[in-house]
Formats: sequence, structure tokens, C-alpha cells
Amino acid sequence: MPDVLVILGSKSDLEIGRRVMEVLERFRIDSRMVVASAHRSPDRVKGLVEVSDARVFIAVAGLSAALPGAVAALTTRPVIGVPVSGKVNLDSILSMVQMPPGIPVASVGLDRGENAALLAVSILSLGDDELESRLLDYRGEMADKVISESEEVERE
Amino acid sequence: MPDVLVILGSKSDLEIGRRVMEVLERFRIDSRMVVASAHRSPDRVKGLVEVSDARVFIAVAGLSAALPGAVAALTTRPVIGVPVSGKVNLDSILSMVQMPPGIPVASVGLDRGENAALLAVSILSLGDDELESRLLDYRGEMADKVISESEEVERE
Amino acid sequence: MPDVLVILGSKSDLEIGRRVMEVLERFRIDSRMVVASAHRSPDRVKGLVEVSDARVFIAVAGLSAALPGAVAALTTRPVIGVPVSGKVNLDSILSMVQMPPGIPVASVGLDRGENAALLAVSILSLGDDELESRLLDYRGEMADKVISESEEVERE
Amino acid sequence: MPDVLVILGSKSDLEIGRRVMEVLERFRIDSRMVVASAHRSPDRVKGLVEVSDARVFIAVAGLSAALPGAVAALTTRPVIGVPVSGKVNLDSILSMVQMPPGIPVASVGLDRGENAALLAVSILSLGDDELESRLLDYRGEMADKVISESEEVERE
Amino acid sequence: MPDVLVILGSKSDLEIGRRVMEVLERFRIDSRMVVASAHRSPDRVKGLVEVSDARVFIAVAGLSAALPGAVAALTTRPVIGVPVSGKVNLDSILSMVQMPPGIPVASVGLDRGENAALLAVSILSLGDDELESRLLDYRGEMADKVISESEEVERE
Amino acid sequence: MPDVLVILGSKSDLEIGRRVMEVLERFRIDSRMVVASAHRSPDRVKGLVEVSDARVFIAVAGLSAALPGAVAALTTRPVIGVPVSGKVNLDSILSMVQMPPGIPVASVGLDRGENAALLAVSILSLGDDELESRLLDYRGEMADKVISESEEVERE
Amino acid sequence: MPDVLVILGSKSDLEIGRRVMEVLERFRIDSRMVVASAHRSPDRVKGLVEVSDARVFIAVAGLSAALPGAVAALTTRPVIGVPVSGKVNLDSILSMVQMPPGIPVASVGLDRGENAALLAVSILSLGDDELESRLLDYRGEMADKVISESEEVERE
Amino acid sequence: MPDVLVILGSKSDLEIGRRVMEVLERFRIDSRMVVASAHRSPDRVKGLVEVSDARVFIAVAGLSAALPGAVAALTTRPVIGVPVSGKVNLDSILSMVQMPPGIPVASVGLDRGENAALLAVSILSLGDDELESRLLDYRGEMADKVISESEEVERE
Repeated sequence: MPDVLVILGSKSDLEIGRRVMEVLERFRIDSRMVVASAHRSPDRVKGLVEVSDARVFIAVAGLSAALPGAVAALTTRPVIGVPVSGKVNLDSILSMVQMPPGIPVASVGLDRGENAALLAVSILSLGDDELESRLLDYRGEMADKVISESEEVERE
Repeated sequence: MPDVLVILGSKSDLEIGRRVMEVLERFRIDSRMVVASAHRSPDRVKGLVEVSDARVFIAVAGLSAALPGAVAALTTRPVIGVPVSGKVNLDSILSMVQMPPGIPVASVGLDRGENAALLAVSILSLGDDELESRLLDYRGEMADKVISESEEVERE
Repeated sequence: MPDVLVILGSKSDLEIGRRVMEVLERFRIDSRMVVASAHRSPDRVKGLVEVSDARVFIAVAGLSAALPGAVAALTTRPVIGVPVSGKVNLDSILSMVQMPPGIPVASVGLDRGENAALLAVSILSLGDDELESRLLDYRGEMADKVISESEEVERE
Repeated sequence: MPDVLVILGSKSDLEIGRRVMEVLERFRIDSRMVVASAHRSPDRVKGLVEVSDARVFIAVAGLSAALPGAVAALTTRPVIGVPVSGKVNLDSILSMVQMPPGIPVASVGLDRGENAALLAVSILSLGDDELESRLLDYRGEMADKVISESEEVERE
Repeated sequence: MPDVLVILGSKSDLEIGRRVMEVLERFRIDSRMVVASAHRSPDRVKGLVEVSDARVFIAVAGLSAALPGAVAALTTRPVIGVPVSGKVNLDSILSMVQMPPGIPVASVGLDRGENAALLAVSILSLGDDELESRLLDYRGEMADKVISESEEVERE
Repeated sequence: MPDVLVILGSKSDLEIGRRVMEVLERFRIDSRMVVASAHRSPDRVKGLVEVSDARVFIAVAGLSAALPGAVAALTTRPVIGVPVSGKVNLDSILSMVQMPPGIPVASVGLDRGENAALLAVSILSLGDDELESRLLDYRGEMADKVISESEEVERE
Repeated sequence: MPDVLVILGSKSDLEIGRRVMEVLERFRIDSRMVVASAHRSPDRVKGLVEVSDARVFIAVAGLSAALPGAVAALTTRPVIGVPVSGKVNLDSILSMVQMPPGIPVASVGLDRGENAALLAVSILSLGDDELESRLLDYRGEMADKVISESEEVERE
Repeated sequence: MPDVLVILGSKSDLEIGRRVMEVLERFRIDSRMVVASAHRSPDRVKGLVEVSDARVFIAVAGLSAALPGAVAALTTRPVIGVPVSGKVNLDSILSMVQMPPGIPVASVGLDRGENAALLAVSILSLGDDELESRLLDYRGEMADKVISESEEVERE
């Protein structure tokens, strides 16, 4: 059973989905990625979510981006939403962020699949010291990378 | 069985719902208004839509405004969406208009309940000459009202 | 006589118009596509709409996108508007959605010609069980396609 | 025959219309204000514009604000548009400004009836030295008013 | 030690903070609410976060709304951001949602303090069956409330 | 002495400027195009405008787009503004449209140089029957072009 | 001679101007506040700026908000712009921020007169240790106020 | 010790950073460019700013663009912010402009690195007549360039 179920609203969101999976794999989180559309296959969304043992859901969707909200309506587990860029961009961001009272979605930034994965890792690390330690290492590597980037820039 | 089922995403949308009902009643359309939330009561939405014999659905919702799309995912009947105003406004408009390919929603303007009802009347009048004739009368009255408004303005 | 009259505001909207026609043809809807501009040829719009027996109108336009509203002012039949993308995008969406009280336009999403056609099919299927059945099949195919897309994604 | 025909899209735009008329009257421009809706009374718009001898048209409208464009499509005389504020504001501004190539509308600012009138005065003053002189006086008074406002502010 | 530390960017965000606390208290989550500004008191933010044993952070801020990101930069624990409404609204929403890669913030909707709290409950319930059961009850009550709201609306 | 003075805010606006000039030349309007920046060369703007006998000014500018307003502050002649597209687009549109009370600018659409020229022609044709007749011919040609475009589309 | 010249685009911006002056007075900066409009009194702006010995200029303006740019075009001294709120808000913000290359304006937030003053203080303190020390004190007081606000909130 | 410290939020902002440095070098301002992220390396930002003797800071950042505010929170020296363009653009502009009361950032336009540098020059020139004189020369060259651009345009 995966700890994280990643649901793409359409196969066209796959590039963002891959960014999610790469980070989850790096943290050795058991995860699974599927396609299910809140509008074209609502029963499939319901089936997948209700049967799933996933501890965290990540839903990736563009345009009116109803998928994360639809998932959140079906589970009390944390649901993270990734708005996907297109011709308007404010559409997927606002559709995802502006959830009504009672059913929260945790929105990350436009096309920000890696941050959705890192947020899932952060949530899962609450009861997992090993995972928290890997997250601290990741933070350290990022800080180191800033320094090496700076050195490159300063050599210019 | 109502010809039009009007679904409000929350009781707070009632003012807009009333505008829908007033126009439907004026045209003697058999209609029913209920509350059902795509996020807080998804099963209720599914139950209401799948069991309904309504020929046209009108869904009224603010914020991320997923309701019209959720209804459209459950029926092949025409679904009209009314975005409700709030602090952002572009949220409900874009969430409703920017539906993905395959599942259309017919969006009308912000808080424009009367236009949702008139669009439903227009759709229902396709097979109903009597109704079409009432719609033509309504148009005539509006044009007359423009003239009387103009007379008031010109008297200033 | 066509059941659906598709009006493009300009020949530059042809790509979106073709998406409309492909779906209408798939559903064997008798349809015709013409060009007529609300601003450059208002008399032509009036002539086309008043003489037409079309049961549903689809108007495709960008920028200030007055065409769907101009058509809706001339007929009591349902008018579906498709906003076309450009440098601003909010211009055509808002011009189309924000119709004044009394004259509704059924707006679909930016460049969403296929959804305009599907909405027309949905409206025409109200009195046509054969068409409704084709629409149900189409929905089924979409749901199946989601599953096959998911299988591809899961194989990654 | 009025030199300027002011057309309001609805009686609710009267407050803005009055600002137009006050400035036109101050400049002793022969003008007339009427109500005519591009959507609810398109024939009335056509009748008014085609019959009019007005040298400049001012059209005031909110929401999808098609009126100035509809007038401009019917005359080669200059048409000035005033977008009216509401819940969205970008709707009337963009609908008016973003006219397609070939049919210009001269847009002024949101609710800026006085500027529409001043632009009409400016256009009419091209062949009227007396009017141009009054416009220069008006400019002078505005500049003086800035000085007296400044004196008040400096006395604080 | 609180399980949730709620940080307000300013005392003027207190109304939203109270909505957070009311929900947290209802779920008997041990929580504490403080004021600390990312801009006016960065050291205080650092001190509070680094010393805290909180398992989840909720940061409430308006305008450029840097607080949730500043907190997220200091901890690997989940950070939930609540954008506060003002004169622009897109400012706090976009500042919060559009975090760079590497440091996620879980954004909820504008002024949506209750959803931030519910998201925290959802996260904390991953290892707490009792809490998950309370969350399921809460969901049930919401669904019941929709039905009673509908009955009121239908009685109209 | 030119009848129309076209001022570009920068040489980078030349493509839009050419569209203006092509239409003015077609209508045999005596015109001149120059570069002058409201910000980098305010004295040059002042010099050009105050000395000019132009009956209409067209100012083309992007970004904060102060040029049309700066010209309008220096003359009582009609000033037409053309906002130029860039990375934001709402910047030049709103900077141009939202002029304060007292100093009008006649804004046309984004990059819409041809419409600025046509508006100038329309203004100049008020006292020039020959020019008005050419404008009517132009309108006729546009309407004919719509018909020929439609024939192409219908042949598809 | 004042060190800071505060220019309001209109007397209606006085409330924001007062916020500027209160902070400047608190820091004992010699300052003067006047009204001058880039559009209604361009010569006055030019006269005031060219004659002024002010070391920093603060320009406060709403709508198309050309004033700070007009001042910056006339001086090489630092010019700080304060956009004033109205019905659109993005108009004054974008008009001020999006200055073309070559002529910078230092924009602060909407209605943020106090921050314009503090930025001026910061600039003037570069050569004035006494002033820098007062600014450090001010920062300390703000940090203390956050703590006392927090105590109030925690007592709730 | 540099007079200006230029901080990039990420190496991906280097193109904008180069524009800053080119102008600073032209004015022979002693400057240094580094990378430091408010979110990925907050301690590095703190270390760099607190230790720095720079008289002016320039911070370049995209997306939620917290860097200039984070720097401003750590120093009383003037901080200039450059928002970097991306998929949304309003995100970095509003995050930077809409700073809360008490901590000002001087925002320049999107990707406008050269203006950030010119603003720094303007600030540093307050106590440096030589630098002010170079700035006046630069202004003169820009005005000359407008004239030569105009000559090219007029030769067309």
C-alpha cells in the first residue's frame, strides 16, 4: 500500500507528476501515481480514494482544477494540490486555493510538483525520525547548493 | 418532477437562488431548489443528480465553485453555472468557466441568477412553442422598459 | 437547415471553429460554420441570425468578444460563446461571461470549442433519445480513456 | 440636432451620464442623453445611431459593455466609451478597450464621464476656435485649482 | 508544549487567528497563538520557531505575506499559510502560494482560518485514530447541516 | 504641417507605429512619426507638442505608458493612446485608460495601432466630407472581406 | 530648504500625505508637502522640482499615477512613489512600478505613506549617524510592539 | 568593502543580476554580487547582511520574492527590490511592493535590473557630486539617444 497516492487530472499533467515522484522516490516514500479526472471519471476518483490506504494524497490539475477538492471531499487524510500552468494560470491557482470552509486543500505553487512531494515528506516525517533526518539533510544540501551557486556567480 | 433543478452550494447563496426561482416561476417552469455542496456533501450531489429527471440543472456557487462541474460530471443534461461574488470574484468566474475538455458547463455572469433562469427557459423552449412565445414577450417587455427608462432620463 | 449555426468573429478563429465542427460532425449534428463580425459586419450578423432556423448558436470570438452577446440579442434560441485566447485572455472571458441581466450567453472556457459543441449536443439531446445515448457513449469513452492513460502512467 | 449623443446602456448608469452632461452643458455643447441597450434593444441602438446627426457619440456601459462597440459599428463618427464600475471592473474596461482591428472606440477611464465629455469638446473644438478657447480657460482653472489646493495643504 | 503553534503577522490578523483557535479547541488540539512579524521582528520568528516543539505551524499574514515562508525556512515541520484579505487580495494569495522550489508552504484560502486548523487536524490525525474519528464526525455534521439548510431553502 | 503627429515612447514601439502610419497614409492624412520619451526626454515631448500644429496626436507606449497623458497635459487637441504589449499588459492598458479627471486620453486596444489611426481619421473627417466618404468605403471593404472570409471557411 | 519634498497628485491624496509627514516629523526631517498634478499642472511640477533643493522626493498618486515618473524625469535625486488605492488598485501600482529603463522610481505599497517616509529616512541616514540611530530605535520600538501585541493576543 | 551588495535569490536570476552589475560598473560603484535565498538559506542572508558594510542593498527575486523584505528586516540601509518575471508576474511584483508598514522596500519594475542600479547610484550620489555629475551625463546620453532613434524612425 503506498503512503502517498499521486493523482493526475490528465495524462498531460505527467511532467509535473514526474517531479512529484522523483522527490518521493529520493525520500524512499512508497508511492503510486495514477490518472483520474474529477470531471471525466468522478466514479474512478471516488473508487480510488475510498479504497486507498494512502496517508497523504497529492492531486495535480490545471484549468478549473477541481480534482484536489474532489479528493478532499472523500477523505479526511491531508490532500495537497498542485495547480498546473496554462493560458490563464490564475484559474488553477484560485480554483485550488479558494476552497470553501470545512474541506481544506493544501495548495502549493504553480507547477510546483517538487514542493507537493516535500510537503508530503514533511507530514509523513512527523512520526518518523529517520525521514525527518533525511529532510534535514535535504535542506542542508540546498543551503550548500546556494553557496556553490554564489561562488559561480562571484567568479563571473 | 421538476424541469429545472436549482442547486445552491450553500445556504449563503440563497439570494442568488431566489433570483433564479423568480424568473423560472414567471415562466411557469416546474422547478425545485435545494442545497448540496460538492465538497461537504458529495454523495448528496451524486444522489440528487442521478435520481433527478430534471431536464436542465442550474448550480450556484462561490469561491472555488466546483459544484457546476461536479453536477456536469454526473449527467449529460445541460448544466448552467452561476458564479457568486465574494472577496476575489475571479475565483468563482474562472473556476466555473475554465472546465476541461469533455465536460461543458454553461457559465453565466457573476451573481447573474436571472440569466441562468432565462438560459434554462431558452433551452426548454426549443421543443415548446408556448414557452418560446413567452420568452419573446419577455424580450419585448425589456425593450419597452428601455424606452420608458430613456423617457425618464430625457425628462431630467 | 442546420441545427447549429457556428459563427466565427474572424477567420483567425478558424482553428477553434474546427474543433467545434469536428465534435458536431461526430455526433452527426447538422451544422454550418460562417464568419460574421459584430463590429465589422453587424448587418450580416443580424441577417444571418434572424433568417436562421438553427436551434442553437455557437459564437466564437476573441478580444472584446461582443459576438455571442450580439447574437443573443437577436434570438431567443440558446447562444453558446467561446472566448478565444490572445495577449490578455481575461478580455474575451470577461466580455463574454459578464452579460447584463436579461440576455444570457452560455460561456464555455478559453478556446474550448469542443465543449461548446458538446453543450450544443447536450441541449439538442433533450428531445432526442438517440443523441442522448450517443452522448452517454462519448462519456463512457472518455472515462475509458482516463483508465488507459492511467495504465500508461503507471507503467512508467 | 445635438452635437453629442450620450447613450446609457441602462438607467443605472445615470450618475455617470450626469457627469457627462454637466461638462457638455458647461461648454454649451448641444447634447442629448438617451438610454439604449446593445443587448436588450439592439434595434433601438441602430435606429438612434443611424438617424442621428450627432458629430460625436458617447456610450456609457458596465459589465460586458458592448454598447460603445455596437455604436461604433454603425457610424464612422468618433465614439467615446465610458466603462462603468461594478464588482469586477476589469470586465467593462477590457470589453471596451480591446476592440478588434477596424472599428475603434475611444475609451476613457472607469466612471470617468467628465473625461468623455472633455474629449468630445476637444474633438469638436478642432473646427471651433471659440470652443478651443473655452477649453484653454478650463485648463487654466484646473491649474489654478491645483495651486489653491496646494495652499490649503501647505497651511495644514 | 503545544501541538500547533499559530503565528499572526500582526495583531490586526486576530479575527482570522480566532477562527483557527476555535476549530483547534473544538478538536482538543493543544495549541498556542502568538504574534511575530517576519519583517518587524525576524529574530523573534526565528527564536519562536527554532525553540518550538510544535508539530504543525500555522502562519497568518496579509499583504506581501512572507511569514509562512519565513517559518517554513526555519523548520522541516509542516507549515500552513493563511492569506489575509485587504485592498488587493491577490497579493497575499500569490505571495503565499508561489513559494520557490525546496521550501513548501501549504496554503489555504483567503481568510480561511478554519481550514488551516482542519488541515492541521488532518495532519495530526495520521497517527491518532481518536482524532481521525472526531474529524469524521465533523464531516458528518457538515453533511447533516447541508441537509438542514436545504430543508430551510425548500420550505421557502 | 502634419495633421497627425505620431509619437513613439521608444524605437522599440516602431512595429506598432508602422501600423498607425500605414492606415494614415492609406487615407492620405498628412502625418509625421517621431520618438520622444515622457521619462527620458520630457523637454523634447514638451517642445514637440507645444510647437506642433497637429490636429490630432497619437502616442504609443508600453509599461507605465505615461506618454499619452504627458502629451494630453500639454495640448487641448485630441490625444489617442496605444498601449503596447509586454510581459504584463495590464500595466500599459491601465496606465493609459485610468487618466484622472480633467485630462482625457482616448485609449484604443493593446498594440492596436490601426485603430488609433482610424480614430484619428474619424475625428478629422468631421469637417471633411471627402475623408468621411473614404472611411465609409473602408468600412464597406471590411464588410466585404468578412463575406469572402466566410466563403473560404464555408468551403472547408 | 526641505530635505524631502512631498508632492500629492491631488488634494484627495491628503490622508496618505499626512502619514508621510507624521513619520518625517517624528524623525525631525525638514520637509514640505505640496499639491501638483502631472496632468493638470505639468509646468508647476517642473517648476517645483527644478527649483527644489530637496534631497529626496516623495510623490503620491492614484489611478494612472504618472506623478512619480514625471518627477523622476526632472531630477537625478531619488524619487519615491506611493500608489493610492481606488476602484482598481492594480492601476496605480503597475503605473508606478513598471517604469521604463533609465528612469527609476522607488515604489512602496498601496497607500503606504509611512513606508515612503521611512525609505526617505533610510536614504538620508546614509550620511547621518544620528538619523541612522533614530531609525534603529524605531525598529526596536516596532519589535517591542510586536511583543506587547503578542502578549495581548496570548491573554485572550 | 562594496558600496552596493547585490543579492540574487537564485542563480537563475543571474541575467537580471548582470544588468544591475553592468550599470553599477559603468558608474564605477564598488559592488559585489552574491546568491542567497530567503527560503533555502535564511542564515546565509542574515550573515551576509549583518556583516556587510554596503550602503545600499539590491535584492533580485521571482515568485513569492521574499528576499528584499527579508534583507530590509535586517538592515536600516535602503533596500531595492527587483521582481523577476515568470509564469504569473503579478506574484513577484505584488510580493515585493506590498510590504507591511514599518519596513520599506524600494521596488522597481519587472526584470528592471538597470533601474535598480540607477536608483542605487541616485541614492549614493546624494553625498557625491562627482557621481551626481556622471548621472546627469547618463541622462543627457539617454535624451540624445531618443533624438537619434527619432531620426532613424523619421528616415523610414
